[in-house]
Amino acid sequence: MFARSLNIRGFRFAGIPAGIKKQADALDLGLVVADQLAVVAGAFTRNLVRAAPVVVAERRIRSGTARAILVNSGNANACTGEPGMTATLETTAAVAKALGIEPDQVLPASTGVIGAVLPTARIIDALPHLVRGLGESAEPFSRAIMTTDRWPKLATARAGAASVLGIAKGAGMIHPDVGPPQATMLAFLFTDALADQATLADALYGACDATFNAATVDGDTSTNDTVLALASGAAGVAPAATELRWAFARVGDALARSMVRDGEGASHVAELTVRGLASDTDARVVAKTVATSLLVKTALFGRDSNWGRILAAAGRAGIPFDPSRAALAIGGVPILRDGLPLGADAESLATAAMQNETYPIELVLGDGPGTARYLTSDLGHGYVDVNAGYRT
Amino acid sequence: MFARSLNIRGFRFAGIPAGIKKQADALDLGLVVADQLAVVAGAFTRNLVRAAPVVVAERRIRSGTARAILVNSGNANACTGEPGMTATLETTAAVAKALGIEPDQVLPASTGVIGAVLPTARIIDALPHLVRGLGESAEPFSRAIMTTDRWPKLATARAGAASVLGIAKGAGMIHPDVGPPQATMLAFLFTDALADQATLADALYGACDATFNAATVDGDTSTNDTVLALASGAAGVAPAATELRWAFARVGDALARSMVRDGEGASHVAELTVRGLASDTDARVVAKTVATSLLVKTALFGRDSNWGRILAAAGRAGIPFDPSRAALAIGGVPILRDGLPLGADAESLATAAMQNETYPIELVLGDGPGTARYLTSDLGHGYVDVNAGYRT
Repeated sequence: MFARSLNIRGFRFAGIPAGIKKQADALDLGLVVADQLAVVAGAFTRNLVRAAPVVVAERRIRSGTARAILVNSGNANACTGEPGMTATLETTAAVAKALGIEPDQVLPASTGVIGAVLPTARIIDALPHLVRGLGESAEPFSRAIMTTDRWPKLATARAGAASVLGIAKGAGMIHPDVGPPQATMLAFLFTDALADQATLADALYGACDATFNAATVDGDTSTNDTVLALASGAAGVAPAATELRWAFARVGDALARSMVRDGEGASHVAELTVRGLASDTDARVVAKTVATSLLVKTALFGRDSNWGRILAAAGRAGIPFDPSRAALAIGGVPILRDGLPLGADAESLATAAMQNETYPIELVLGDGPGTARYLTSDLGHGYVDVNAGYRT
Repeated sequence: MFARSLNIRGFRFAGIPAGIKKQADALDLGLVVADQLAVVAGAFTRNLVRAAPVVVAERRIRSGTARAILVNSGNANACTGEPGMTATLETTAAVAKALGIEPDQVLPASTGVIGAVLPTARIIDALPHLVRGLGESAEPFSRAIMTTDRWPKLATARAGAASVLGIAKGAGMIHPDVGPPQATMLAFLFTDALADQATLADALYGACDATFNAATVDGDTSTNDTVLALASGAAGVAPAATELRWAFARVGDALARSMVRDGEGASHVAELTVRGLASDTDARVVAKTVATSLLVKTALFGRDSNWGRILAAAGRAGIPFDPSRAALAIGGVPILRDGLPLGADAESLATAAMQNETYPIELVLGDGPGTARYLTSDLGHGYVDVNAGYRT
């Protein structure tokens, strides 16, 4: 699933420590530069509270092209008003100057603590070092964008004769809801394909809805979620739109899965499927309600095949179904049929399946055509540790 | 706030161990008997998955009167199909027989593990002992209905010359959403007032919306939530409707506050007020989103005045407001104005206020008339402990 090659034609990457994070020598500033103008598409958080870099990046992708992405971790530059906006504009302008390109061609993204203005001077001071560090491997960049992440997140796929490389960060405040122009998940999809903006955007939005927007760690949608797709065209070939879409969806799925698996304090990933409702939209509402239920997520942590909590969460989703027809399987083991439990043996088999790092939960609520899928993590002491003391 | 007198004219109470809970000698069966037919009103969970006792109690209150309430803890009798329904009907029939009343006059309520059929024989065997135990004090009853509760929950108020006594249980799976006929909160409001059913129901629904339905521990609405109000008329006086409504709201508020304070693993209560939106409905949506945010609740656990998380949660509620006009105070200390933080001193004062067992959080998002209030608890390791191992 994960990347074998950490480079992609037409793009160079860098990641260095710039003193933004408290920990000395932690990588916290990343840069991606396209050799030529790249076609760009973006999806941004639908949270009403949006960080300065989100506002700026959304405006700048309207031109349809970009040359660079400047990303910092350790500071979200959110809820920072005019000083925050100035910091985003000044740092991206400095990148443009260092690269000899236009400021509007530099897309900013930030992740970290809310409410502190981005340290402009430190970033500008670090830029010469950052630019000198540009190289083919995306590995330092993938580490520079991490916050509470335990590992970097990369994935690749083929789209016909072209390639796709995806890089993401995210472990908490993960319940992306990103859409056309308007994800602290950050995800970057790079391709060397030739693609026009409509095709690129279509592939991006399709991938977001099927993957990032159907993944949750804690139900909290960030002020900074950003997904950017850049196409360099360096492969010299234009894959079929469906090929590109499929490749983006595969890479997005791998990245979303890695984020959920890396959920703060999480140890495993449950892949929830809800079927049998009137519509996909209905199924998605139920899946989201179950996937974000604290009682369900703590039961997962306890490796408890607690079907009652799953069914109770579905029942409060506001979507009509007949509970007496509900069926449930965990790890492929049926434990509920016609709304009634199948017994202690079935439950102990399901509990055994829950020892795996990832397993399916299938909830069938009728015979309608509506289906949805959601990735969710267990929630335990680690989450509390990370988030009760995040700023202190 | 809490009850000084644990009795109310016209009602007798009992609570005994019946072997329903695993722990030997734990009180788990409670009975309330009205000396005469009492006027009754009820509000039941809006969860689509509803336990057998909820279905039966809702049907039986339609007659407008009742004589008895049979409550067990340790078993929710939810998702138990026909055997569960039979168990509810047989146990309430046995109570009716023992008391010499009609079965339809006995209202059932259950709380505990989902998916196990109520142990009919144990309950019926215990009934003679239960009936012999009937007395004026509601104290044994208030303990017999507890599950993960750390303390019994009682509250009283005056309604003119009449009295109101409220008894509740609940600490987890607490996000009540109860309404006209339709917790696992269980709450029982007893009054010795003379009241017709419409007046009683009106007072009950008003109290539910203002108190239980604006309180959350974990965002999970139970299959068994039940609020019943019974009026014995033994005081011989009919208070004004507004008096009764006010008394119910006061008792409801005290009980809801006690439930949230007793939230599984919780150590304190935050009383969230959201103001300045277009409507009360809008304010309620925002308040609910903030009150149920995992990042907000873990910040409360850490006593971290993390306003960024509060504002970010408000921003994903789907209600329009201008973030640059947002203001926030915690414990009466303003820490955000015009969308911007008021500095480290303000935050450290707010953090100090968060050491209290209860404190207000006031979020102002504009100058509209819409206001809402929500009670929420901190969420920490205790919640994980209780819920990762609840059934094992």
